[in-house]
Amino acid sequence: MYLSLRKRFGQRVRELRKSAGFTQEAFADRCGYVRAYMSRIETGGANLSMDAIETLAAALNVPVSKLFENL
Amino acid sequence: MYLSLRKRFGQRVRELRKSAGFTQEAFADRCGYVRAYMSRIETGGANLSMDAIETLAAALNVPVSKLFENL
Repeated sequence: MYLSLRKRFGQRVRELRKSAGFTQEAFADRCGYVRAYMSRIETGGANLSMDAIETLAAALNVPVSKLFENL
Repeated sequence: MYLSLRKRFGQRVRELRKSAGFTQEAFADRCGYVRAYMSRIETGGANLSMDAIETLAAALNVPVSKLFENL
């Protein structure tokens, strides 16, 4: 089953967020987003911008390449 | 000197476009973009969306991860 890039990316953010030990609420705060938007990101409902991608990587303390590894 | 993600990504698109042998005009056409927008992408002036990133990767015939390798 082909998953869109948005969905695959959302799953990657969720995996990395959980392994970093953040709740969705705490991570949304850390990024300056409301929780509902973070939920849309993680479920592939948001068409993220490059600047938002940079914000997520910084908040997860990983290089942007890690967010796209094998995607 | 710190280059924003937009600028580093734009340079990567330019490198991959050139090694694939496309002029900027031909590649813009292939993506369904006007040349001026492609020029903004390559110079880091555009805050690309995830869908646009997916379009660029498909047009370059590379996985999305390649566009972000070491960024």
